[in-house]
Amino acid sequence: MSGQANTLMPLPVAVHASQGEFAITPAVTLSLGEAHNSLLEAAARRMMERLQMQTGVALAHDPVAGVAAFNVSVADASATLPALGMDESYSLDVTSSGVALKAETIFGAMHGFETLLQLVQPEGAGFVLPAVHIDDAPRFAWRGLMIDSGRHFMPEDVVLRTLDGMAAVKLNVLHWHLSEDQGFRVESLKYPKLQGMGSNGDFYTQQQVREVVQYAAARGIRVVPEFDIPGHATSWLVGYPELASKAATYEVQTTFGVHDAALDPTRESTYMFLDGLFGEMAGLFPDEFFHIGGDESNGKDWNGNPKIVAFMREHSLKDSKALQAYFNLRVEAILKKHHRQMIGWDEVLHPDLPQSVVIHNWHGPEFVAEGVKQGHRVIYSQAFYLDHMTSSGEMYAADPVPVSLNLTPEEQKLVLGGEACMWSEHVTGFTIDSRIWPRMAAIAERMWSPATVRDTEDMYRRLAVESLRLDALGLTHISGPQRGLRMMAGSVRGAEELAVLTSTLQPVGFGERYRMQKTTQLTPMDSLIDFTSPDPLSAHQFGLLVAAYLQSKDATQKDALTKVFQHWVDASAALDAIAVDHPLVARYPVRREQLIQLGQMGLAALRYMDEKKAAPADWIAAQKALLAAAAKHAELVEFAVLKPLGSLVDAAAKP
Amino acid sequence: MSGQANTLMPLPVAVHASQGEFAITPAVTLSLGEAHNSLLEAAARRMMERLQMQTGVALAHDPVAGVAAFNVSVADASATLPALGMDESYSLDVTSSGVALKAETIFGAMHGFETLLQLVQPEGAGFVLPAVHIDDAPRFAWRGLMIDSGRHFMPEDVVLRTLDGMAAVKLNVLHWHLSEDQGFRVESLKYPKLQGMGSNGDFYTQQQVREVVQYAAARGIRVVPEFDIPGHATSWLVGYPELASKAATYEVQTTFGVHDAALDPTRESTYMFLDGLFGEMAGLFPDEFFHIGGDESNGKDWNGNPKIVAFMREHSLKDSKALQAYFNLRVEAILKKHHRQMIGWDEVLHPDLPQSVVIHNWHGPEFVAEGVKQGHRVIYSQAFYLDHMTSSGEMYAADPVPVSLNLTPEEQKLVLGGEACMWSEHVTGFTIDSRIWPRMAAIAERMWSPATVRDTEDMYRRLAVESLRLDALGLTHISGPQRGLRMMAGSVRGAEELAVLTSTLQPVGFGERYRMQKTTQLTPMDSLIDFTSPDPLSAHQFGLLVAAYLQSKDATQKDALTKVFQHWVDASAALDAIAVDHPLVARYPVRREQLIQLGQMGLAALRYMDEKKAAPADWIAAQKALLAAAAKHAELVEFAVLKPLGSLVDAAAKP
Repeated sequence: MSGQANTLMPLPVAVHASQGEFAITPAVTLSLGEAHNSLLEAAARRMMERLQMQTGVALAHDPVAGVAAFNVSVADASATLPALGMDESYSLDVTSSGVALKAETIFGAMHGFETLLQLVQPEGAGFVLPAVHIDDAPRFAWRGLMIDSGRHFMPEDVVLRTLDGMAAVKLNVLHWHLSEDQGFRVESLKYPKLQGMGSNGDFYTQQQVREVVQYAAARGIRVVPEFDIPGHATSWLVGYPELASKAATYEVQTTFGVHDAALDPTRESTYMFLDGLFGEMAGLFPDEFFHIGGDESNGKDWNGNPKIVAFMREHSLKDSKALQAYFNLRVEAILKKHHRQMIGWDEVLHPDLPQSVVIHNWHGPEFVAEGVKQGHRVIYSQAFYLDHMTSSGEMYAADPVPVSLNLTPEEQKLVLGGEACMWSEHVTGFTIDSRIWPRMAAIAERMWSPATVRDTEDMYRRLAVESLRLDALGLTHISGPQRGLRMMAGSVRGAEELAVLTSTLQPVGFGERYRMQKTTQLTPMDSLIDFTSPDPLSAHQFGLLVAAYLQSKDATQKDALTKVFQHWVDASAALDAIAVDHPLVARYPVRREQLIQLGQMGLAALRYMDEKKAAPADWIAAQKALLAAAAKHAELVEFAVLKPLGSLVDAAAKP
Repeated sequence: MSGQANTLMPLPVAVHASQGEFAITPAVTLSLGEAHNSLLEAAARRMMERLQMQTGVALAHDPVAGVAAFNVSVADASATLPALGMDESYSLDVTSSGVALKAETIFGAMHGFETLLQLVQPEGAGFVLPAVHIDDAPRFAWRGLMIDSGRHFMPEDVVLRTLDGMAAVKLNVLHWHLSEDQGFRVESLKYPKLQGMGSNGDFYTQQQVREVVQYAAARGIRVVPEFDIPGHATSWLVGYPELASKAATYEVQTTFGVHDAALDPTRESTYMFLDGLFGEMAGLFPDEFFHIGGDESNGKDWNGNPKIVAFMREHSLKDSKALQAYFNLRVEAILKKHHRQMIGWDEVLHPDLPQSVVIHNWHGPEFVAEGVKQGHRVIYSQAFYLDHMTSSGEMYAADPVPVSLNLTPEEQKLVLGGEACMWSEHVTGFTIDSRIWPRMAAIAERMWSPATVRDTEDMYRRLAVESLRLDALGLTHISGPQRGLRMMAGSVRGAEELAVLTSTLQPVGFGERYRMQKTTQLTPMDSLIDFTSPDPLSAHQFGLLVAAYLQSKDATQKDALTKVFQHWVDASAALDAIAVDHPLVARYPVRREQLIQLGQMGLAALRYMDEKKAAPADWIAAQKALLAAAAKHAELVEFAVLKPLGSLVDAAAKP
């Protein structure tokens, strides 16, 4: 159980392989020992169902009494709601006679279940668990994913399946961004115009919120709601313009970016409203933390309102930052009354802010330093912006405790952990999975595993396996784009040809799309870019294949590369034919044309190397020109295979 | 708009194409005219969203006031709940200046929306609606799909997406089979032990039932619940053994087939219970029809109980059939009290039965004749059993009014329509879509379109298009099996190789699987058979290609066939390599080996024909032997490509 056999993700703290294995047979049953509860029973049942699915072996799903092949023992099963700082550790012992899983809490045991499923390996005609002892516990207590249901609403089933994926990679916080300029997404019974007028009708009923919170808790995941104030709050003002800093009629925004609208922090009625709303929401969200956003409030509507300016003068608030600090203090008091600890984005950091407030970092790492130096606990997100389309490797290289900061051990302790952020300017419920997964798994490992776990190539190797596991769990990062390509190509076969093209591509970054497409909330999110995966594993694997071939000149690898290039050539030709009567395919002439050029380039490079003669200078020059052209942005997608291809051309240039 | 351009499904009553077209541009808006309601508005919004998805054109989703490009006018928008006999007709006028959709009810307008979306065609760089006038109305008022949530529970999201598909092909009844020996699947507040002890915990809450009923109504679909009594009711007796005909302790059944357990029809307390339960359920299910099952009650526990036998003697009930008739009369009176009309399977037919009871036919067509001759209204299902794995073509050839019966016009009127039945012995929420779709669309056409619409080949041509439309709508008949194959093969590439194999295969029929696999409710439904589609369109298209080539000997068709056969050969070899360390692939050595044989057979046959010489007799004999071996059942899947392949071999035998 080491090297290539180890496909665990996130990697545990300690894995000690030994001799032997335990075979999965229909006789396998699971026992929960003395301390258990209904959440643990349900988790055990789900685990057995998934084990059955993985192995094709019919298994009894219900836990049995007494000693079984899988023995789970939990020290204390009294906690049924995950909380910050809960004990998530577990140990797992696999021997030839069975499995012992031990944990302090049911949530630790659930992590053990996930590790157990990841240990399953084929052996002969069946499947086994290799003998191993694992001791494991998370490096950070806060390991989250932020979902933005504000800019584009995410239907409940999307949220639920996301929670499945989160549990699989041992994440424990769903940060749910629930209000934005573009929509207020939770039903308030107290202030029904919030969702009634402040959304397009897409919001979560209180019943749905309860379902999500319960589903998450059953998987050891806390749900932290965010209601973004005082800015990013246009949707609140549609139904309740009396909260606004500027007398106006408001409409739900369809454009993105920073809007001027903001709550009026000078009126007592604003705080009464927040008290009422947050009290109601505290009844829906049991977690002790509550996120108030606080980002990107530009102060324009404050400075434009004489009454607010007068208030600032009166209270010696020298600028809008000081006024926001005043506002935050008031909001913090309200939350404290409702037994909630406040979280805010970097912008809430201010000398007057109580130390109990948690700073959520999204700007440069210097804000992390600033936050902990002022004694705040900090959550890190800066490098973990999934919407930026950064590669898994780049995000994996970042750290919630950036080494560059040289934090003291005491300061480091104030970093609770991190969160990946899935802002939804460019994401809908149909496309979100391929933006989160599998990259999220790499970030999850960064937040769970020891800081010393740093082998990016090994991460990619395991990520490819994890991606398939997440697919089997019901996430749609593979099936969704495939469906999208079928819609574009109008046939299963045509979609397969398009998939050859997208296997070489990735979406342009966030800013580029925003600028090029002039995106708003009404922009359709169903074109090639949306069915193209950021940092596609196919491209990474192509890179490895080229590197291996260049080192070994092995014939098998050459054949594999030839096949890849021939696929590109064939697919490009096939797509040209499809494009004739499929307008959605016809829209990408540049990348289709370049795909055949790149394929032919690869084939020719392989031929030159095969013939052991240097490629002629004019061919080299022509290829460099083609590579440079292919590197230019076009059609909102960029090639993810140019670097390895360039190195093949370089190699062909040498005799 | 005729011939190949017409991909409408089900085919409308009348389609008159004319010159011109209407282009889909961002300027397209939709207006609802005067009579409308929130259901119609929501349906219009969904239609515009789907049109946007199909065309990639950003469209305003909300209906506008005044005249628009799409003008919908409904005569009477007062009905918000679909009911038997509602007017579902609509007319659709597309001219170069826009679209006029007219209907009597909002439900007719919804059908028109589906037709409108099916009219969209590519034209140059964009999409158009061809100029056409359509008049349409259903042949039968009752067009249903039965989902069996009893034997295997179907999660709510499965039911919801099934409703999306049903609406797309103009079905209007979801017959929901909610209780079985294997589980009672609805929450009863009055008798909570029904679902509490009579299920494995998988049941629909009343809230979920309300959601399903509302979601269906919003798509013009009625929901008819079935609570199967007096047999198929073991699950009721687990919590309420006092209802049983035999004093015993009952457990939820895990085996299928006919069980002896039955409600005791001789005790008044049984009827009081049914009165209470059906009264509660009538509050959940607003439709005026209520299905009581009534099938396969074998009378054993009745005849084995002296008290029941005495009761029969006392009431001059000569046998268990007569006793069941007595029971049905009592139940019918209870339902009448709750303003519900009773439906029962063929077995409820009895001279004493009130004519108001609807007979649901599942036995031979003679029961249809018998039912209508006794004055009952009849729903036809006999040839529409989706679980039997019958081909789309065979089911399409059947008719709710079997011509063999020679029914009078008056008798024919008593046939309300039909239902496809998706019994779930061998189906889970993960696999159900590929068992329903796309075959359901062919049955839907049989029930909607005029009886004269009979061109099976044209049906298959349109079915291939409809299958992709259903895929785009979110049904998983394509993506689900693909995901399953990824689970088996452990990689995207490996799954593609397996998909080549499954493109030639189909599941064995119901009985064969039941016998060979000895299936119970606990049998895993996640092996090759489950990820193989009944009557795969790929096999049908292969048949067409062979037939076309044999007629024309065209080189393009030969090339296409060569590619297909080479794919088979390559995939078989690739799968052998994958099987080495993928036990779930290794389990199918017979079909893997035969795939390469069949591929080589095809390649050789093409070569012989190319060389214009007759294939040698010993080669022919060898191929016949291989074909015969491949026709034998193995590994729960059968080849769907043998007939065309055999005709190719036959042709190669001739010079």
